[in-house]
Amino acid sequence: MIMSETSPQNYILLLSCPDRAGLVSRISQFIYERGGNILDLDEHVDPVEKIFFVRVLWSAEKYSISASELEDAFRPLAKEFDASWIIRLTARKTRIAIFVSRYDHCLLEILWRNSIGEFAIDLAIIISNHSDLAPLAAQYGIPFHIFPITSDTKEKVELQELDLLEKSSIDTIVLARYMQVLSSQFVESYKNRIINIHHSFLPAFVGSNPYRQAYERGVKIIGATSHYVTEVLDEGPIIEQDIMRVSHKDTRNDLVRKGRDLERLVLAKALRLHAEHRILVNGKKTVVFD
Amino acid sequence: MIMSETSPQNYILLLSCPDRAGLVSRISQFIYERGGNILDLDEHVDPVEKIFFVRVLWSAEKYSISASELEDAFRPLAKEFDASWIIRLTARKTRIAIFVSRYDHCLLEILWRNSIGEFAIDLAIIISNHSDLAPLAAQYGIPFHIFPITSDTKEKVELQELDLLEKSSIDTIVLARYMQVLSSQFVESYKNRIINIHHSFLPAFVGSNPYRQAYERGVKIIGATSHYVTEVLDEGPIIEQDIMRVSHKDTRNDLVRKGRDLERLVLAKALRLHAEHRILVNGKKTVVFD
Amino acid sequence: MIMSETSPQNYILLLSCPDRAGLVSRISQFIYERGGNILDLDEHVDPVEKIFFVRVLWSAEKYSISASELEDAFRPLAKEFDASWIIRLTARKTRIAIFVSRYDHCLLEILWRNSIGEFAIDLAIIISNHSDLAPLAAQYGIPFHIFPITSDTKEKVELQELDLLEKSSIDTIVLARYMQVLSSQFVESYKNRIINIHHSFLPAFVGSNPYRQAYERGVKIIGATSHYVTEVLDEGPIIEQDIMRVSHKDTRNDLVRKGRDLERLVLAKALRLHAEHRILVNGKKTVVFD
Amino acid sequence: MIMSETSPQNYILLLSCPDRAGLVSRISQFIYERGGNILDLDEHVDPVEKIFFVRVLWSAEKYSISASELEDAFRPLAKEFDASWIIRLTARKTRIAIFVSRYDHCLLEILWRNSIGEFAIDLAIIISNHSDLAPLAAQYGIPFHIFPITSDTKEKVELQELDLLEKSSIDTIVLARYMQVLSSQFVESYKNRIINIHHSFLPAFVGSNPYRQAYERGVKIIGATSHYVTEVLDEGPIIEQDIMRVSHKDTRNDLVRKGRDLERLVLAKALRLHAEHRILVNGKKTVVFD
Repeated sequence: MIMSETSPQNYILLLSCPDRAGLVSRISQFIYERGGNILDLDEHVDPVEKIFFVRVLWSAEKYSISASELEDAFRPLAKEFDASWIIRLTARKTRIAIFVSRYDHCLLEILWRNSIGEFAIDLAIIISNHSDLAPLAAQYGIPFHIFPITSDTKEKVELQELDLLEKSSIDTIVLARYMQVLSSQFVESYKNRIINIHHSFLPAFVGSNPYRQAYERGVKIIGATSHYVTEVLDEGPIIEQDIMRVSHKDTRNDLVRKGRDLERLVLAKALRLHAEHRILVNGKKTVVFD
Repeated sequence: MIMSETSPQNYILLLSCPDRAGLVSRISQFIYERGGNILDLDEHVDPVEKIFFVRVLWSAEKYSISASELEDAFRPLAKEFDASWIIRLTARKTRIAIFVSRYDHCLLEILWRNSIGEFAIDLAIIISNHSDLAPLAAQYGIPFHIFPITSDTKEKVELQELDLLEKSSIDTIVLARYMQVLSSQFVESYKNRIINIHHSFLPAFVGSNPYRQAYERGVKIIGATSHYVTEVLDEGPIIEQDIMRVSHKDTRNDLVRKGRDLERLVLAKALRLHAEHRILVNGKKTVVFD
Repeated sequence: MIMSETSPQNYILLLSCPDRAGLVSRISQFIYERGGNILDLDEHVDPVEKIFFVRVLWSAEKYSISASELEDAFRPLAKEFDASWIIRLTARKTRIAIFVSRYDHCLLEILWRNSIGEFAIDLAIIISNHSDLAPLAAQYGIPFHIFPITSDTKEKVELQELDLLEKSSIDTIVLARYMQVLSSQFVESYKNRIINIHHSFLPAFVGSNPYRQAYERGVKIIGATSHYVTEVLDEGPIIEQDIMRVSHKDTRNDLVRKGRDLERLVLAKALRLHAEHRILVNGKKTVVFD
Repeated sequence: MIMSETSPQNYILLLSCPDRAGLVSRISQFIYERGGNILDLDEHVDPVEKIFFVRVLWSAEKYSISASELEDAFRPLAKEFDASWIIRLTARKTRIAIFVSRYDHCLLEILWRNSIGEFAIDLAIIISNHSDLAPLAAQYGIPFHIFPITSDTKEKVELQELDLLEKSSIDTIVLARYMQVLSSQFVESYKNRIINIHHSFLPAFVGSNPYRQAYERGVKIIGATSHYVTEVLDEGPIIEQDIMRVSHKDTRNDLVRKGRDLERLVLAKALRLHAEHRILVNGKKTVVFD
């Protein structure tokens, strides 16, 4: 993880475009000409869709250039490639808002990992439809905003939340077992920037109460899935999944207990990957440069 | 695995019945009075359905008694308990028929493991709707019967197969990537005695071409599931599952390649567990005393 | 996990003795005669050493008997069997002392799990040779005792600690990344009742700095091991182990980060198993009735 | 795995050299100028030793150039970089010799996988100090050479084997549970080109009978390790490892049975990675571009 060496002059390029000859050469040339030394380069070509994906991390210590100057310089190349892309200074941390309801395990996991420096994030705010977890947020010194929601008030409350998110310059939202379904409008505002944790091995056990479904089906393995939120529930691009063995001895409560460990680890990993700019969305799927 | 010590006088009891006080005491007393020394006892109580499950393995070296005498002696107790049960001499191996089509990996796996003594089975016959794997069967000296099947002939051919199975005194059928759906009548004849391997992590990706489905969904983990066959496709009681990590680098062919390893290991494990009388069916689920 | 149903009249017997015929029968008879209904029974016979191990959980709701009366009644049987044994009311929780130094991850894991009721323990006290984690203990309301240690004061300080442990009626000590080696005398006082977490896959990388050792050896998998502490460092009976994949991309810091997750999960599992009386020591090994 | 698309004009470069700015740019420029389209590029910089590693796969369909012309053209660049490197046509398969003794599981695994096209190899010959596996080799049509070995004849026999290997143009040797220790001279002749499977999770349980060692230590997980052979037994650079859970129920025979599955899967994976030129040796460790 070169990311730990986040010197002030480390940059990341995340780019996808139609595949063609010379892309790596042109991009690495661009970096080299500006005094950059590539520390890490991952690339992938979707062999079916013929799309090129790349993540490059480089240091440019000897060459003084701002991120916006670099973007301006790169723009003509990106246009030629017909690319989707971002360039980021690694020192510029992703600003995060966490949405929670009443379960504490995913929130605590993120707060604690953040407190020991595992994430390249600014954990800016926590938003909840309940007050239960306010004390936990306070222990870690993160502002906690309560927005009670009913089916009647949902539309209005979401607008208030969006307003707060914008004022707080939030880049990415993490749903840490948030028990409300977001509206399509809300999701559209943070496209591929809302990370959810679903407590099953998707696409098995979509929807509510997956542990009950798993118990009744008698599976021998349970899972958890972190994915970007899209309009269709539990169908967004999968970022990370993990599993745990269960047996006939495990009650529904045991599945919930074991599942908690999966949920917090899988969500934390997805957040780390996202914050380090390691994920590119490829249609309904993801490319993860781990 | 005490099973490897299959002395001529080792017995197994597999029993399920409504739960009540004194079951373990009464059963272990029954064994003790007949000179048995319990080598292994596993029991489970379904806490929701209040059903008792037990598997007992004991040696009765000092006491000469036939399996049928033992069954006669146990019958009154079983009736009192309202139990489903079997008693088996471990020396009496389960007779197996394998059904295959054209893929060789699951068949080779079973043939090889059987050749080095991993299974407590008599591998009696192999049945196929194609001739491709006849040479492989010949290498291991197992009779290979070809029953070509079309939608028109299916009903008639199944009757011929059932006839052969009966003549061959088959206890259990293993579908080693057999590409035909068995009729309800066929399944009913071998209830909870047909073991299938499905090349996905059920209940995800039911039906045909699960690797294509998995590839298109962009999952980060693929699986395989071995289960008893019931009338409803891919919904029988699950015996064993396992998984493997995949990434954006894996093509559909890679999923197939990785999946082959899962399929043969999971099916082999299910067969071993079944042959050692370690599985009890509990409605739509299984109790596996591993 | 029937343990979650800890009614006031649930008992556990944990017993080991030389193997002989009739043990399960005699023990289950003893329970049945006293109105007990067996909820869970696990047994194992070491096939080499010919030792019998059993754990029985039963409810005795209809029959009023104290734990000490039950022990008195069982004593003659245990003597006849030449057994090591305990009988415990499940309502009588194991009293725990945690020893820590400066790392917070294992302590937080135990404190949090305890706060949501995952453990059958009374978390009585935390002992540390540093003050760093006092605020964390305070958040969860657990008394925190600081005993600074130098090589000169070690002997004296250990006596003070033992005094506090005795006054606090501690059953079991958990070393949650405690960075001091306990003396033989101390270990002897809590034989098979001190649980340690070692941050490697034992017996690989014994001793100090296992992550550095693992990094230099270039392993592709790292592990963590929880074991009972004995006089010889890192050689006590292993309770639980788990692993995580690593690659050439992982720096030493990455190994430490990934290892933290292993350490806290493995130690938490070992504590849960111990507190639920699921572990019997068999010489240098353990029998774990999971 | 783009490797499956082994068109006649696909090349692989595998290179390591001291790190410096511009390496990716210079190399990708070299390929681009010769009409190549990069299909896959993996690079890694050892952050401690400051060494650069890269694997590039490219197609050069529109440009007719032989492998030796390409090597000649690249040589000046490699010299400038002070690099270790190879360039290979993917159509030029690695020639393999397998060494076996009496265990069949690893040999069968490789023969079967090779028969269905999983490996980019020419499986040229099998060498054994026993005749037991000659029939298995014959089934798959691979020449089988028997070289009986005693401590007296070892030196002489190894020379004969080396002679046969040279005549057969062998690139890489696979020790598929070969029960002889190779001499230093022999190892030196195929440096980083002899792949071994050790039946433990190295560095735990070095040397003979690791399953007995594992059984006696009471580990909860067993493993297998594939590595390049060096002069010091079981200390070569690790290519791949995997593990399986075990418990007190598992006898030594069970460990052997479970271990067989690990051995054959781990060795097969190591061979596949090696044959696809995905491994670079970094001192006592490996860089594996999986």
